[in-house]
Amino acid sequence: MIKKITFIFFLACSQLVIAQNADSIMLKKISDNVMLKGECYKNLEYLCKKIGNRISGSENAQKAVDYTFKLLKDAGADTVYLQECMVPQWVRGKNEIAKITTGNTETVLKITALGGSVGTPNGGIKGQVVEVKDFDELKKLGKDGLLKGKMVFYNHPFNQTNVETFKSYGEGVKYRYMGPSEAARYGAIASIVRSVGSSYDDFPHTGVMKYNDSLPQIPCVAISTVGADVLSQKLNLKIISTFYLQLECKTLPDVKSYNVIGEIKGTEFPKEYITVGGHLDSWDIGEGAHDDGAGCVQSIEVLRTIKSLGIKLKRTLRVVMFMNEESAGRGGEIYFETAKSKNEKHILAIESDAGGFSPRGFSSTATEQQKNKIKQWAKLFMPYGVYDFDNNGGGADIEDLNKLGAALLGLLPDSQRYFSLHHTDADVFEAVNERELKLGAAVMTMMVFLADQYGLN
Amino acid sequence: MIKKITFIFFLACSQLVIAQNADSIMLKKISDNVMLKGECYKNLEYLCKKIGNRISGSENAQKAVDYTFKLLKDAGADTVYLQECMVPQWVRGKNEIAKITTGNTETVLKITALGGSVGTPNGGIKGQVVEVKDFDELKKLGKDGLLKGKMVFYNHPFNQTNVETFKSYGEGVKYRYMGPSEAARYGAIASIVRSVGSSYDDFPHTGVMKYNDSLPQIPCVAISTVGADVLSQKLNLKIISTFYLQLECKTLPDVKSYNVIGEIKGTEFPKEYITVGGHLDSWDIGEGAHDDGAGCVQSIEVLRTIKSLGIKLKRTLRVVMFMNEESAGRGGEIYFETAKSKNEKHILAIESDAGGFSPRGFSSTATEQQKNKIKQWAKLFMPYGVYDFDNNGGGADIEDLNKLGAALLGLLPDSQRYFSLHHTDADVFEAVNERELKLGAAVMTMMVFLADQYGLN
Repeated sequence: MIKKITFIFFLACSQLVIAQNADSIMLKKISDNVMLKGECYKNLEYLCKKIGNRISGSENAQKAVDYTFKLLKDAGADTVYLQECMVPQWVRGKNEIAKITTGNTETVLKITALGGSVGTPNGGIKGQVVEVKDFDELKKLGKDGLLKGKMVFYNHPFNQTNVETFKSYGEGVKYRYMGPSEAARYGAIASIVRSVGSSYDDFPHTGVMKYNDSLPQIPCVAISTVGADVLSQKLNLKIISTFYLQLECKTLPDVKSYNVIGEIKGTEFPKEYITVGGHLDSWDIGEGAHDDGAGCVQSIEVLRTIKSLGIKLKRTLRVVMFMNEESAGRGGEIYFETAKSKNEKHILAIESDAGGFSPRGFSSTATEQQKNKIKQWAKLFMPYGVYDFDNNGGGADIEDLNKLGAALLGLLPDSQRYFSLHHTDADVFEAVNERELKLGAAVMTMMVFLADQYGLN
Repeated sequence: MIKKITFIFFLACSQLVIAQNADSIMLKKISDNVMLKGECYKNLEYLCKKIGNRISGSENAQKAVDYTFKLLKDAGADTVYLQECMVPQWVRGKNEIAKITTGNTETVLKITALGGSVGTPNGGIKGQVVEVKDFDELKKLGKDGLLKGKMVFYNHPFNQTNVETFKSYGEGVKYRYMGPSEAARYGAIASIVRSVGSSYDDFPHTGVMKYNDSLPQIPCVAISTVGADVLSQKLNLKIISTFYLQLECKTLPDVKSYNVIGEIKGTEFPKEYITVGGHLDSWDIGEGAHDDGAGCVQSIEVLRTIKSLGIKLKRTLRVVMFMNEESAGRGGEIYFETAKSKNEKHILAIESDAGGFSPRGFSSTATEQQKNKIKQWAKLFMPYGVYDFDNNGGGADIEDLNKLGAALLGLLPDSQRYFSLHHTDADVFEAVNERELKLGAAVMTMMVFLADQYGLN
């Protein structure tokens, strides 16, 4: 009996080894195909240089819809179609100016209005600035009535001690997101936030903020990390007479936009879906190269590679360019609602929205069973520098698909450089390395291949 | 008996767990110290921007000696001293010109003379170009007498399918290193090599070459990857009448230079040495930021961090700025010879010379016992994204220390971007990310700490 069990055990093991060998050969083919024939880098160049940044509702966003529609066709999708969604339309306007007056001297600070901010009245506003390091200090000063009529300056530094920079981003972004309304709660007239960025430089980082409906809407901006120190030093020296702020941004009515979807129909289980995507909209500064042009062109590369290698997927692959991740997530919402209303069976969704850097792993939101299955494949990914399968995560555009049973995976690239560029003028095509971008796309394709081959249940 | 063994086993295991917890706390302290107080990034800025590139024997190399001498003192070394070595002195001269004539049109190609190349006669040389893809093709054409009086163009593309780019570099660099003499063997008058670079751009990559003493010395240059395609296309179209080359480079007599060495004396085993280093010389284009300013400032950071945290090392730490790695390795040679003549006991040597990118592991040359010991610590490095301990390697400047019993380790950063920059004008301070550089320094410090704490035998 023992012998028999042992024999079966070794048989099972050896079959596993044979399967893993065949898989590792296929994974190498995928990698080689992307590295040698991949088009994601040149597609990203076009998206960044010929179209440029593409905030929801903009003309450029529509151009990006048209362009990626064509790319998905060219990559070999069976079907390419648009999925309509209504998106918020926030426009920056022409001028955004911040000046500190010190005696007779004016210092101009580089700023960027936060996405969703109201503008100032024509001619701008002036006021005194009160610096706080966190919400506790805000509350204390606010309760003492010291913020009334003032501009609040959140000067929370990026926590450099976290190895994963997304953790530090998570710690700091609340001042950008909720800071304006929390300041307005105590009568402040504007909110200024130190950029949630990891580099010490003069690039302000924009990003979405949200007003609390029950509080006055005050204008809000980010200043660079260098600018924050300049402001803080002048405040410490008590030499600032006034801070001048002028913003012309405003929110227009929602407009029609689209997710762009390309499919390859599955050969065995065409009604089971694997979704792979990035978001097509970006902020309206820089070129949205890493965020998230990279994720879009990588997702299209997955489809191109599968066609190029003649891989017949059992399940239906859907590559999705999600619209409007940055401000309201409407694209992700409509994709989920549609899938739910059609009772679709989703087994896996992968999003790439953490930059086009060297891939290091996948974060996941999945059942224990799904996670264990994915971890069984871990060693197949090691030759590609991909070793980290332990973090929770997924992606903003796909998160609801978990409710339909899908395992969610987020491509996890090296995070050291992301928050130097994120939502700034520095997020341009030149900041993307071709090999890093392609390796990410290759690794996403590998995961699609394995999940399709072996399922996830 | 079984119970007793089991008990001892569990006791040993639990003590290991306690030790590893204490170690992981110390490693986090090291990381936090470097990320918050580290000076390597600003030191690198000075080295790159105030001194600049620093080829062996140059005035800048001497400035770098003086500067890092001071840095090591400031970082808290007990002793800082110079170790004399004679280094080759190759100078580029003022002009280096390559032009293709096509009918009445001249196309200028960006070139860089290879380190060690002879110049052309005054007024340059003209000739016809013969393209070869490898030494086999060279040999065939050479034997047919088709290379006599010609310029040989080695057009070997970078192998993009290797995930580790150093592997592709290894495959391609022979055409740069030995190509000139191999071409001269068949009567060629010059050698032109496609840059051993992973990006498709217009930066030629220099680097050392070596003449075979028994063959004529012919001038040799690298052209960019874009330039190589331009040249190749024109050759295919058979529209090139002549290729003009002018170089003013030459080799002067050897001159005196130095390794810079800073020490902290060990408290228990002061006669056992741990060496940590990078090389101070660079090529004479760009700023030698990744190659190898990064390794130098990271090595100094190791010493600073250990002093800053009040860690008392049992063994003597030596931080070495090796001179002349790029052309003849004289610094490494003299360091080894001196150690050997003094009968020093070296237990570990770490070199950082693969760029200041996110660390991913350590390559090693060591006994099985040493390797096993290092691998026991592997999981302590995982929180820092360092997981790869399986590659052979070490570093050019430290390799001989293996003969003295030292385990050799090479910091293994992410390699995707290195050969976009290596030995080019693009290897500048701006191409280095502060967090990536610092993480590398932190990880080197951790390895020194563990090896000192537990030994390596």
